[in-house]
Amino acid sequence: MTGKTATLSIQQSDSSTLDIDLPIHAGSLGPDVIDVGKLTSQGHFTFDPGFTSTASCESKITFIDGDNGVLLHRGYPIEQLAEQSDYLETCYLLLNGELPNADQKEAFVNMVTHHTMVHEQIRTFFNGFRRDAHPMAIMCGVVGALSAFYHDSTDISDPYHREVAAFRLIAKMPTIAAMSYKFSIGQPFMYPRNDLDYSANFLHMMFGNPCEPSVISPTLARAMDRIFLLHADHEQNASTSTVRLAGSSQANPFACIAAGIAALWGPLHGGANEAVVKMLDEIGDVSQIDKYVARAKDKNDPFRLMGFGHRVYKNFDPRAKVMKQAADEVLAELGIQDENL
Amino acid sequence: MTGKTATLSIQQSDSSTLDIDLPIHAGSLGPDVIDVGKLTSQGHFTFDPGFTSTASCESKITFIDGDNGVLLHRGYPIEQLAEQSDYLETCYLLLNGELPNADQKEAFVNMVTHHTMVHEQIRTFFNGFRRDAHPMAIMCGVVGALSAFYHDSTDISDPYHREVAAFRLIAKMPTIAAMSYKFSIGQPFMYPRNDLDYSANFLHMMFGNPCEPSVISPTLARAMDRIFLLHADHEQNASTSTVRLAGSSQANPFACIAAGIAALWGPLHGGANEAVVKMLDEIGDVSQIDKYVARAKDKNDPFRLMGFGHRVYKNFDPRAKVMKQAADEVLAELGIQDENL
Amino acid sequence: MTGKTATLSIQQSDSSTLDIDLPIHAGSLGPDVIDVGKLTSQGHFTFDPGFTSTASCESKITFIDGDNGVLLHRGYPIEQLAEQSDYLETCYLLLNGELPNADQKEAFVNMVTHHTMVHEQIRTFFNGFRRDAHPMAIMCGVVGALSAFYHDSTDISDPYHREVAAFRLIAKMPTIAAMSYKFSIGQPFMYPRNDLDYSANFLHMMFGNPCEPSVISPTLARAMDRIFLLHADHEQNASTSTVRLAGSSQANPFACIAAGIAALWGPLHGGANEAVVKMLDEIGDVSQIDKYVARAKDKNDPFRLMGFGHRVYKNFDPRAKVMKQAADEVLAELGIQDENL
Amino acid sequence: MTGKTATLSIQQSDSSTLDIDLPIHAGSLGPDVIDVGKLTSQGHFTFDPGFTSTASCESKITFIDGDNGVLLHRGYPIEQLAEQSDYLETCYLLLNGELPNADQKEAFVNMVTHHTMVHEQIRTFFNGFRRDAHPMAIMCGVVGALSAFYHDSTDISDPYHREVAAFRLIAKMPTIAAMSYKFSIGQPFMYPRNDLDYSANFLHMMFGNPCEPSVISPTLARAMDRIFLLHADHEQNASTSTVRLAGSSQANPFACIAAGIAALWGPLHGGANEAVVKMLDEIGDVSQIDKYVARAKDKNDPFRLMGFGHRVYKNFDPRAKVMKQAADEVLAELGIQDENL
Amino acid sequence: MTGKTATLSIQQSDSSTLDIDLPIHAGSLGPDVIDVGKLTSQGHFTFDPGFTSTASCESKITFIDGDNGVLLHRGYPIEQLAEQSDYLETCYLLLNGELPNADQKEAFVNMVTHHTMVHEQIRTFFNGFRRDAHPMAIMCGVVGALSAFYHDSTDISDPYHREVAAFRLIAKMPTIAAMSYKFSIGQPFMYPRNDLDYSANFLHMMFGNPCEPSVISPTLARAMDRIFLLHADHEQNASTSTVRLAGSSQANPFACIAAGIAALWGPLHGGANEAVVKMLDEIGDVSQIDKYVARAKDKNDPFRLMGFGHRVYKNFDPRAKVMKQAADEVLAELGIQDENL
Amino acid sequence: MTGKTATLSIQQSDSSTLDIDLPIHAGSLGPDVIDVGKLTSQGHFTFDPGFTSTASCESKITFIDGDNGVLLHRGYPIEQLAEQSDYLETCYLLLNGELPNADQKEAFVNMVTHHTMVHEQIRTFFNGFRRDAHPMAIMCGVVGALSAFYHDSTDISDPYHREVAAFRLIAKMPTIAAMSYKFSIGQPFMYPRNDLDYSANFLHMMFGNPCEPSVISPTLARAMDRIFLLHADHEQNASTSTVRLAGSSQANPFACIAAGIAALWGPLHGGANEAVVKMLDEIGDVSQIDKYVARAKDKNDPFRLMGFGHRVYKNFDPRAKVMKQAADEVLAELGIQDENL
Repeated sequence: MTGKTATLSIQQSDSSTLDIDLPIHAGSLGPDVIDVGKLTSQGHFTFDPGFTSTASCESKITFIDGDNGVLLHRGYPIEQLAEQSDYLETCYLLLNGELPNADQKEAFVNMVTHHTMVHEQIRTFFNGFRRDAHPMAIMCGVVGALSAFYHDSTDISDPYHREVAAFRLIAKMPTIAAMSYKFSIGQPFMYPRNDLDYSANFLHMMFGNPCEPSVISPTLARAMDRIFLLHADHEQNASTSTVRLAGSSQANPFACIAAGIAALWGPLHGGANEAVVKMLDEIGDVSQIDKYVARAKDKNDPFRLMGFGHRVYKNFDPRAKVMKQAADEVLAELGIQDENL
Repeated sequence: MTGKTATLSIQQSDSSTLDIDLPIHAGSLGPDVIDVGKLTSQGHFTFDPGFTSTASCESKITFIDGDNGVLLHRGYPIEQLAEQSDYLETCYLLLNGELPNADQKEAFVNMVTHHTMVHEQIRTFFNGFRRDAHPMAIMCGVVGALSAFYHDSTDISDPYHREVAAFRLIAKMPTIAAMSYKFSIGQPFMYPRNDLDYSANFLHMMFGNPCEPSVISPTLARAMDRIFLLHADHEQNASTSTVRLAGSSQANPFACIAAGIAALWGPLHGGANEAVVKMLDEIGDVSQIDKYVARAKDKNDPFRLMGFGHRVYKNFDPRAKVMKQAADEVLAELGIQDENL
Repeated sequence: MTGKTATLSIQQSDSSTLDIDLPIHAGSLGPDVIDVGKLTSQGHFTFDPGFTSTASCESKITFIDGDNGVLLHRGYPIEQLAEQSDYLETCYLLLNGELPNADQKEAFVNMVTHHTMVHEQIRTFFNGFRRDAHPMAIMCGVVGALSAFYHDSTDISDPYHREVAAFRLIAKMPTIAAMSYKFSIGQPFMYPRNDLDYSANFLHMMFGNPCEPSVISPTLARAMDRIFLLHADHEQNASTSTVRLAGSSQANPFACIAAGIAALWGPLHGGANEAVVKMLDEIGDVSQIDKYVARAKDKNDPFRLMGFGHRVYKNFDPRAKVMKQAADEVLAELGIQDENL
Repeated sequence: MTGKTATLSIQQSDSSTLDIDLPIHAGSLGPDVIDVGKLTSQGHFTFDPGFTSTASCESKITFIDGDNGVLLHRGYPIEQLAEQSDYLETCYLLLNGELPNADQKEAFVNMVTHHTMVHEQIRTFFNGFRRDAHPMAIMCGVVGALSAFYHDSTDISDPYHREVAAFRLIAKMPTIAAMSYKFSIGQPFMYPRNDLDYSANFLHMMFGNPCEPSVISPTLARAMDRIFLLHADHEQNASTSTVRLAGSSQANPFACIAAGIAALWGPLHGGANEAVVKMLDEIGDVSQIDKYVARAKDKNDPFRLMGFGHRVYKNFDPRAKVMKQAADEVLAELGIQDENL
Repeated sequence: MTGKTATLSIQQSDSSTLDIDLPIHAGSLGPDVIDVGKLTSQGHFTFDPGFTSTASCESKITFIDGDNGVLLHRGYPIEQLAEQSDYLETCYLLLNGELPNADQKEAFVNMVTHHTMVHEQIRTFFNGFRRDAHPMAIMCGVVGALSAFYHDSTDISDPYHREVAAFRLIAKMPTIAAMSYKFSIGQPFMYPRNDLDYSANFLHMMFGNPCEPSVISPTLARAMDRIFLLHADHEQNASTSTVRLAGSSQANPFACIAAGIAALWGPLHGGANEAVVKMLDEIGDVSQIDKYVARAKDKNDPFRLMGFGHRVYKNFDPRAKVMKQAADEVLAELGIQDENL
Repeated sequence: MTGKTATLSIQQSDSSTLDIDLPIHAGSLGPDVIDVGKLTSQGHFTFDPGFTSTASCESKITFIDGDNGVLLHRGYPIEQLAEQSDYLETCYLLLNGELPNADQKEAFVNMVTHHTMVHEQIRTFFNGFRRDAHPMAIMCGVVGALSAFYHDSTDISDPYHREVAAFRLIAKMPTIAAMSYKFSIGQPFMYPRNDLDYSANFLHMMFGNPCEPSVISPTLARAMDRIFLLHADHEQNASTSTVRLAGSSQANPFACIAAGIAALWGPLHGGANEAVVKMLDEIGDVSQIDKYVARAKDKNDPFRLMGFGHRVYKNFDPRAKVMKQAADEVLAELGIQDENL
């Protein structure tokens, strides 16, 4: 606490005024917050649709300064992590509060690498879906069903269970994601390869096939890894809040993450990325740009430009800078040189 | 708006005080609420873990007065609905704001009755689960997968889609629930029977079997119906909020309900009902009551009494009164006369 | 043979003329035909794309007089069969050359009724298809696979095998057709009901469901039966010729019929019926008729009127007259009175 | 057209004679043909069971001179193609009219190589068959079902669809054939190997197993390739005609090929090859030859010598010469030296 | 013990004689037995291939007097049981030592009737078999797998487990037998019908189908019941001994019965019944009898008459008398009057 | 026969004595046996529960001298076989009576190596089991079902069938065992690897996974091989006797072995090994040894020490000596040095 207080003076029906003192807490990095917890015991409620003015927890993990384009993971700027670290180190950081030393990293990577396989019954489970199911619907169903496979990590009140569940989700999520994709395009599931690192293995499972050995470009794997790293945390957004809210009833971790996947799928949240790809497909090539810009400016035209900035960043999105660099490296490797990109 | 305002005076770092005027809105039935929406634009946030003091929406549906044991559905006391109405009428009421007239009811009941079947592929989908999966895990997975089967009711921004999705969920949820139960005990799924009403059909699907015709007691069906009716709405609890939060990203309705099921499963929420049954199993019979009451009073004993009241009701739970009456009728029919019950 | 001959005088390279005498055969009902079989031994071929001028077999079964709108099954006008007979009698007629007496009919109906079920493995086989497979694709695959289930009726050179195969195809085809339809809409397969006649049972399998007993209107069943009867034979069309051609290599009967189904599916053949339904769906209601007639007349518009007459009937299609009467009865029963129909 | 005509003089009932002039067309390589197309408009038909004297199309692809043992693919003698070309080049030739240059061949081979996999759901589909199903029944069913998987290449009126369908059939048929074989003997399906050429890959999928790497003899692969090449086209035989006839209703290409497979399976057509193998199994070894020759000569003995020549070749089958050479190479590699072979 | 002894005098290598006194036990009904248990401690063994002279247990259940054609179940002659009792009463008798009174019978029948269903997963399990698997192979596999479904009755050292396992086997065995048969002929499994008695229900599950209600003849059901009753016990035959031997290692009851089914399948044991049916099929009709009798008498002919008497009955098989009567009743009902039967 | 006899003098009811002369046979290595076969014809039986004093067959295979800790396979001491031979040689020895020479061994190993795969349908069969089925229940079911796959080796009266069945069981049992294990832990089945020897391949199938190549330690493979070798034969124990007894009805070999697996599973037989592992898990580590020894000595404590010696070995178990050496080598390789082991 800060020792500072705020006073809320509420006009009463009889025109008198009720004064309620409210404590002020200091955030670890951001602005102070006014604790309204005791209002309810006095018969008052605040009203805040969308919770834009209300923080629901203290967090030692997340920090965004939207005005200045700052995103910190556990206090580290993402640019620095993207430069000097990798995704699994960032996971370790988020879980433990500090980056791992060499031994800790080796142990963590080793543990993740050897838990990437999923129970064989899950392959059967996939086959229950329709082939035209959306990959996010599949992921939601599969992750929600994990509780039936991993009874020993579903008690959210047990720290060991929580840790094991976290490890499992980190290790198995790429496998499940790739299986969802492969299922939807009718290709065989690819087992993980333990000789590849986390992101290269993901690319192998996504784009490999049993007819020839996967050859994974280190540049693409590194780009993939940075995309994972950048998205490792992003404040109390809709999916994170859904996970937390579902978790507040002590539901098991897999069910909570499944709930979060449901939220993430929404067109206003993670679904926006899919919308960008669809928009680019629609535009087709550079010759069409002027036409589509005109349509975007025309208020009567339903066409909307997607993917230009995130609401919380007023000036620029710090993640975009890192991703631009990754995209440049990838295009260089692929030999694509296009002024318009 | 009420025209009334409140003023929040916040102590600044330089010891000066910042005064912010906040509008006060009148709830339709409950207490007034203080609108804190503009705080964030001035760099301030309230802090309210669990959102106990914060309302996130205006609702014309739900009202609880915990002090006086009042629960209203769209303004109707639940005792009155339980006496004079039934579950499907209550669904109609919640969806449309008013109880149906005779024609409207017939149309609504007819529509629900003829959409109770689920896609045959969903039977295959069930078989992908492990037999020892928890029924709630199954329901979460199955409901989450519905989006793949019903593409024509997943656009939450389309009122017709929303309505169709609501109808489908009302009509098919008992079928899915019964299938989840049957799967977990290894009995065959029972198709719905169109000659039975909503609750009798649910009992048929839960407890019937293909070896003999189901004989459903009207008393039990009526009791089941009142249980559905009583639980049709209960304010912004964890599962409702999870559904709303997931839905705020415009995720499809089935995914959002799946997220809500994940939350509902938690031991602190819907899972508490399961805990009561387990507790009763553990206690066994009346001869053990004294022993277990002693254990419950012993703070060092992990045993807890479950099911004695809901946090929001300070004096009594209005639903308990209705359920007691239903339970009495059921026991009378079953010929059980037990002073201890 | 007629005793009459024709002479083909072919101009040679050296300007001489080669005369070849060709025998003339009398058809049972239709025009005489000129036997060109011996041309090939003299190094000559006729050229006839689509075989419009070439008969490939003598048939005691089929007769069409397109100019006068006459269609005979084994010499009986279809109007007479539709009035006084039914589909299974017509099948018996086509197979045996004469209509059955009462005992023969009872035995034939009884035999067909008790062979309507298909091997349970075929249900599994259906589940291998994608849910969005076209019902005709499913039928083609399933009928083609029947040879694996019925080894004892695949030798086309054995009269008993041929008869058993014919019975099986008559008895099981409605079951397979209904299963294909049910599979594609995701409803459970309905087992045949032995207390229903052939066409009523087909309607039961198509439109019944396990939630309530099927109530089959005799009027609709009778209309269905006449549709089957009318289509029991229609000369050497593309599907019939495909079956015959495939069969000429002594392929097993199920494979040959599967080949015929493939041909029947084509948009210029049986697929034209499906196109009519799609066209009616597109037109929507009577208010649109003028607009669509105009489009049909506009040569630049791709819209085409479908279903107005069959190429071989120059004046009217004799089947249409019978079907109009059936349609009138059905609409009367359903209480639909529409001048525009 | 040749400018030449033929005149058909038909004896009438009244003993008069009707003269009809018929145009004569020149074939690209073979004999001239007499166009009988206009006979039908004058109420006359030719009669030609088996269509032995009737050509149904002009073909720029196929040419057989049975008397002289000549078989041309697009004008190239098969001996020359077998010597200097390979199967995929021959496919290109048949599709495009000319052999590919180096770039065209590389593109074509690359395209085929990367489309050999079939949709994973097809594996499920296989499992719906009985294990004792004949491989040809399986192929017929599977190819017929392909339309459900490849919606984008089923419109026979679209040249692009036709091309894609052709590519798919060339690329996937060996995979489907090998899967049909493996299924019937209970061995696991082998995925294609992109590092092998077309015929070597087929041998790998047929005879490889997951317990050890496939080692494919180049001699055997080359022999296999020539067998494919020799069979790439053989005039308007029963299966080709069935495909064309089914296709004349614009049925989708996969259904038409399935129809052709049904015809090919017949004992008088492709099934004759299977009969040869069975006959050799029955004969057993060289000591039995005299006995079986005697039986073959005995008209009362049902035993028939199979595989000695094809009806259209009066003197010798040009394919036999090439295959003899391939067989010699294979036997030399396998170290089998047998005067009797 | 009888108090009587026997003395075994064994000639030694040194020509001396070793005398060992052996106790004699009285059997409950049959001959006395000489206890050789202590021989082994003196370094001697008896030798008795097939254990024809060696009893391995005292039994209060079984008694056969082969010379006089007597078979007792728990002391009751089978003729008396067949006349006045039924199969389930006989089961009760074998389990408990006495026939049930009316209340005991009602409770026992009720318990059996409501446990005839098998776990739904077992349906899936059936589908893993090949369709051409022998029904006894299926039964062996399915019964052996039951332990995975009924963990709560596999501890053979717990009397309650033993009793529950016995009840389950009695109740579910007809269901499994009928499913094995239905699977092998490709018909759908029929669920039990609780309104039918034990044997009528078995006939329903064996011969019923979903296309029409099963109509079970009481005469046939009664005949079936007597067949069950007669076979309820038959001394220490190969299958019983196999069950006991497997059970001596305390293997779970389902595994032991599976072992017994394996033994029962053998051609020299239960398989002999199947051989009789096959022999009758081969003989065909009465006109062939003389020929086959001659073949049976011809020692060089492999044909053997099957089913004429059981080795242990020297004069007549007491079961045959009862079955003859049942067969007569069945034939009378079916209206078959055949002197040759 | 030895020429020696024994005389059994049985006291009769009338106090007279009946003398029966019994022949004495010499065992190949062990004690002589007294042939009691003719007792039964004189109305007498011996009584020998558990058959401890009764030999049921002459065996040229097995010999145990429990007092001196001797176990011979076909006359070879197991120590010698373990030192100089391997498991497959021992199988050859048991089947043929003599160890193979180099050519025989190569042929035998080659034959076994190339028959390790099981029919693909068996994979489907596995999936019918519940995931929580005990691996021994799975093995029992799968082996019992083999008869449906291998019709050509089920006639126990045909020497060739017997040999093929023996080869198949030797070759496929490790595959089935590993599949049972993999299924129960939810890992994918691993196909055999033909480049590994018998025991190394078993370790690969048990502990390998598709994410990385299996690296099999030769030391562990050799230890595994010796464990197989030691257990290749162990006299007429419960499982062997069960196999023989089931086989005495000429049941097919796979069913008989399945029966033996059922017996082997019992806690008093093969199940005892599992009990040892469970006991060690319960004890946990060396610090608990004193406590558990005390419990074992306490007669009121249900805890029992498992695995200390086999009933037939009075002084030491000859297999233990060999296994101790193998265990030492394994621990040395794994670098575990523990005085307490």
